[in-house]
Amino acid sequence: MKVALIMGSISDEEIVKKSAAVLKDFSVEYDCRVISAHRSLNLVLDYVESMEQNKIDIIIAFAGKAAHLAGVLAGLSIKPVIGVPVQSSCLDGMDALLSTVQMPKGVPVATVAINGAENAAILAIEMLALSNPDLKEKLRQYKEKMKQSVQEMNERISL
Amino acid sequence: MKVALIMGSISDEEIVKKSAAVLKDFSVEYDCRVISAHRSLNLVLDYVESMEQNKIDIIIAFAGKAAHLAGVLAGLSIKPVIGVPVQSSCLDGMDALLSTVQMPKGVPVATVAINGAENAAILAIEMLALSNPDLKEKLRQYKEKMKQSVQEMNERISL
Amino acid sequence: MKVALIMGSISDEEIVKKSAAVLKDFSVEYDCRVISAHRSLNLVLDYVESMEQNKIDIIIAFAGKAAHLAGVLAGLSIKPVIGVPVQSSCLDGMDALLSTVQMPKGVPVATVAINGAENAAILAIEMLALSNPDLKEKLRQYKEKMKQSVQEMNERISL
Amino acid sequence: MKVALIMGSISDEEIVKKSAAVLKDFSVEYDCRVISAHRSLNLVLDYVESMEQNKIDIIIAFAGKAAHLAGVLAGLSIKPVIGVPVQSSCLDGMDALLSTVQMPKGVPVATVAINGAENAAILAIEMLALSNPDLKEKLRQYKEKMKQSVQEMNERISL
Amino acid sequence: MKVALIMGSISDEEIVKKSAAVLKDFSVEYDCRVISAHRSLNLVLDYVESMEQNKIDIIIAFAGKAAHLAGVLAGLSIKPVIGVPVQSSCLDGMDALLSTVQMPKGVPVATVAINGAENAAILAIEMLALSNPDLKEKLRQYKEKMKQSVQEMNERISL
Amino acid sequence: MKVALIMGSISDEEIVKKSAAVLKDFSVEYDCRVISAHRSLNLVLDYVESMEQNKIDIIIAFAGKAAHLAGVLAGLSIKPVIGVPVQSSCLDGMDALLSTVQMPKGVPVATVAINGAENAAILAIEMLALSNPDLKEKLRQYKEKMKQSVQEMNERISL
Amino acid sequence: MKVALIMGSISDEEIVKKSAAVLKDFSVEYDCRVISAHRSLNLVLDYVESMEQNKIDIIIAFAGKAAHLAGVLAGLSIKPVIGVPVQSSCLDGMDALLSTVQMPKGVPVATVAINGAENAAILAIEMLALSNPDLKEKLRQYKEKMKQSVQEMNERISL
Amino acid sequence: MKVALIMGSISDEEIVKKSAAVLKDFSVEYDCRVISAHRSLNLVLDYVESMEQNKIDIIIAFAGKAAHLAGVLAGLSIKPVIGVPVQSSCLDGMDALLSTVQMPKGVPVATVAINGAENAAILAIEMLALSNPDLKEKLRQYKEKMKQSVQEMNERISL
Repeated sequence: MKVALIMGSISDEEIVKKSAAVLKDFSVEYDCRVISAHRSLNLVLDYVESMEQNKIDIIIAFAGKAAHLAGVLAGLSIKPVIGVPVQSSCLDGMDALLSTVQMPKGVPVATVAINGAENAAILAIEMLALSNPDLKEKLRQYKEKMKQSVQEMNERISL
Repeated sequence: MKVALIMGSISDEEIVKKSAAVLKDFSVEYDCRVISAHRSLNLVLDYVESMEQNKIDIIIAFAGKAAHLAGVLAGLSIKPVIGVPVQSSCLDGMDALLSTVQMPKGVPVATVAINGAENAAILAIEMLALSNPDLKEKLRQYKEKMKQSVQEMNERISL
Repeated sequence: MKVALIMGSISDEEIVKKSAAVLKDFSVEYDCRVISAHRSLNLVLDYVESMEQNKIDIIIAFAGKAAHLAGVLAGLSIKPVIGVPVQSSCLDGMDALLSTVQMPKGVPVATVAINGAENAAILAIEMLALSNPDLKEKLRQYKEKMKQSVQEMNERISL
Repeated sequence: MKVALIMGSISDEEIVKKSAAVLKDFSVEYDCRVISAHRSLNLVLDYVESMEQNKIDIIIAFAGKAAHLAGVLAGLSIKPVIGVPVQSSCLDGMDALLSTVQMPKGVPVATVAINGAENAAILAIEMLALSNPDLKEKLRQYKEKMKQSVQEMNERISL
Repeated sequence: MKVALIMGSISDEEIVKKSAAVLKDFSVEYDCRVISAHRSLNLVLDYVESMEQNKIDIIIAFAGKAAHLAGVLAGLSIKPVIGVPVQSSCLDGMDALLSTVQMPKGVPVATVAINGAENAAILAIEMLALSNPDLKEKLRQYKEKMKQSVQEMNERISL
Repeated sequence: MKVALIMGSISDEEIVKKSAAVLKDFSVEYDCRVISAHRSLNLVLDYVESMEQNKIDIIIAFAGKAAHLAGVLAGLSIKPVIGVPVQSSCLDGMDALLSTVQMPKGVPVATVAINGAENAAILAIEMLALSNPDLKEKLRQYKEKMKQSVQEMNERISL
Repeated sequence: MKVALIMGSISDEEIVKKSAAVLKDFSVEYDCRVISAHRSLNLVLDYVESMEQNKIDIIIAFAGKAAHLAGVLAGLSIKPVIGVPVQSSCLDGMDALLSTVQMPKGVPVATVAINGAENAAILAIEMLALSNPDLKEKLRQYKEKMKQSVQEMNERISL
Repeated sequence: MKVALIMGSISDEEIVKKSAAVLKDFSVEYDCRVISAHRSLNLVLDYVESMEQNKIDIIIAFAGKAAHLAGVLAGLSIKPVIGVPVQSSCLDGMDALLSTVQMPKGVPVATVAINGAENAAILAIEMLALSNPDLKEKLRQYKEKMKQSVQEMNERISL
């Protein structure tokens, strides 16, 4: 049971870290790689081939602009692929969002918000929790904590 | 092991049917409901409460315009929630897409393309297949068939 | 006669303060809360339940990104709900605007401009003034002052 | 207690009728006019002047494209002004939405969805109900009926 | 022969100055005012009334967000009205552009680029030059100078 | 005193006719041509050269998609150039609008609404009327008639 | 010297035909295939591998929605890749345009207009003409004919 | 064999340098000019006329806002024209992208990403490599190096 964190370029590392941190909090193992759909498609193919053996269950792909990484991975694999559209300097990430989410019939990418790295990790954990009671319990606690943190915010209102 | 198909209004039934057809093809049970986040939040709460008992593993939510249904379900449940933004008469479905995908930290919705009902079902099946070798095999065949169908298209080119 | 100021997260407090300041200027009481439609829907339900007793007449809801808070409150209450789309780091607030304004039939949200916190308060006061001659008079003075301030700006033109 | 339905052109009458129908259902009186902010500003001024005498409490303004009607009325009156952006042949109504909702500080327009005529009427009724127990009761029944209609839709699902 | 420079708020003065500078270069007189379509419609009416007497030939109106100023002036006057959409903090000025340019039949606003203050002045001068040989000659020189300045840029290329 | 109506392709003739009809109503002469900035730039140059002699005072240019025609004419001439962005099959005319209105410093195009052919003609007439009392009077009557037509619409309201 | 016409699905054949027709007019050979970047990446790899042998000089790729086909081909080949964004039922082709044009550094796609199949062919011919005097001459005649056809349109103006 | 780098204004020089650097790396000669389609169309015509003699094979045109430069050059020449939409202060470069890419039938511009100067150069080199084995070999090495640099990034991952 492992999650792959695949970024198109090392420059996306800061945002990938946010997914990694969440996975660590849930004690879910991950494997982090730089693999470009455009500059090194061979690495993509090799990686997908090795996934079974490396016990990768879910892929989270991070890419900006004409973000094809998640889509290409989704085409090659039968594992769930989660896409994180990364905001780059132009167009506010709208290009990455549309390139990631508007996939053709038969090849879904589970798309989260622009820069939504934490949510990508939570979504992966929800998938894994379907057959993992331990993770399920942790998710319940996570939700409970969110609820409490909202309640506590009320005490900090200065208005 | 069941998938919930939740639509905001009976008017979305045509598009929901496309998800149902895919699930049927994979022999995955589903439970179909009309539940509105705005007009009947109590039904949402009741439904989420009953999910454990009804063995619902994954929710696919269909909604147009200011599409809040998937997000509200995601807030209440620890099961994966897949959101299908439905195109309505104005704005080409862009409003539904942004309302579905741009979720805040902690509450992901796995968003597919506008009107991407088939892909929502495939994505749900990929999640279930993580712990179901039978579904995994069927997905493999599905992918193989897609590949073949592309190859066969080449024989129909009249150019 | 009271206005509820509901924000999805304490991080929106700065913008909520702008509504509060206007309400104070008009001596209209308000009740300020952090309540998230996604992270603490139970608080939403509790709050709406208590509104009658707490003499809340109007709700102003502040939320960014996939902004569902105003819509969910509008679904639960028969009081007017005013939505303030909050600009966040991506998409210039367009996601929040569409998520707030494009509500389905039967559940309106009175939407103001992106980050339009002052106008949300003025709108609430206009509603309350319908049956409150004192507020009506204050609104008249407010409009008159705006008009004068525009006229006075002409004296500061350096061109 | 009356609601003004102001359209920029007789060509918007079909959509205005949807507001009128809702108001009739709630037995709320309305006054319907064609008044253009661009072609007959004098009519706008005359109308606003006569509102007090005509017991107009709320204005609903309908306009497409560069939709200035609601904004101009909001500038002249201290009554709540509800704006309905009307979709015209180009740009899907996005121009009308932005022209209506993005009002400057001090002059709010309570904007509803593009073509959201029914919701504009419901919003007006919610405002009037603040000081009218009879309307409040009717709104409660309206919400209850919506809830029931959603529940009944479930019986019509053919999936 | 005079050009009116009308801004919705003193905060737009910096951008208005760019139009004023161009007009000065061409020795065209101008009259600069703060007049808000929303906060002081009476000033708009007074100003338009006095235009004939003040020998105002052309109006340049500057406004941001739901930019109604140019449109309202165009509705009241038979003089050419030039609209400059002003970029404000949200939406990159797209709201102001659409609110200015998408005018209904019968009431044109000659719209220039977002923040295009210099071009608004040049356009006004082109209109005045139709019956003013002196301005025509100056425009010719202005165009010639632009051409030369482009040619001279080539000497500064360091590539 | 003549207005040039320049279209990029004969396929735009239907929309050009709307400008022509308005000009005819005001007894303003016009000269209609198909000239493409992309396919026949030589014709553009020839036409601009001959304008003085042909007594062309104002150019109205019609173009869709990457609409460069108005901009190129504006670069070559010191006469006012009015641009009509024409809606084509994709993108709702937004491409034509931005290509027409977002001109660089020094070369303004007076842009009207997408498909706003009538308004382009009115704008041209307003410019000509600056030095033509007869047209000025006609414009006054035109405005008066618009006002009356709005007033008469009120008698046709069936609500 | 051959041009590859690669479409993601047989459903794009109608638009591909427009490119083929232009190539035929210039007597340029082409090879037409259905190859999906998502459903049959192996075909993509095989095809690119065989390009040298098949004397393919230029690729034109047609794809809609999250259009990754051109980008993936560009990543694999050192031949020029031309991308034609295909308009599908939602979003007017804006998703396909951004997915095609916003390529990361190092992997260009020569993007033409949405549905711009003819232009893709012309662009390919311009590239081939760089080292083919015969094609160069044909292009010159093509341009000349376009110019003439614009001139002839002037005789058909009925205005 | 030379590439022309044409910018609309010296202010675009920084971005043009990125193309120049890539061309230098491949030892491809270039000729750099400031030529404005709007401010100095005569220079455009002169330049195109001299291209044959100056052995210019390909044009890369850089322009922002209503970016007409590439389109006008494409209309005048039978050489491939590559367009680089330049991001300016408003609208994130969307105006430049649409003005560059949405060209009418018969006059293609090979458009790259907003600010995609490096890719414009690579694309030009790919075109020249069609008949230049030396450049072809260099492109192969360039692709190989990209692949390696992605692989090496994996060693720098700190996650």
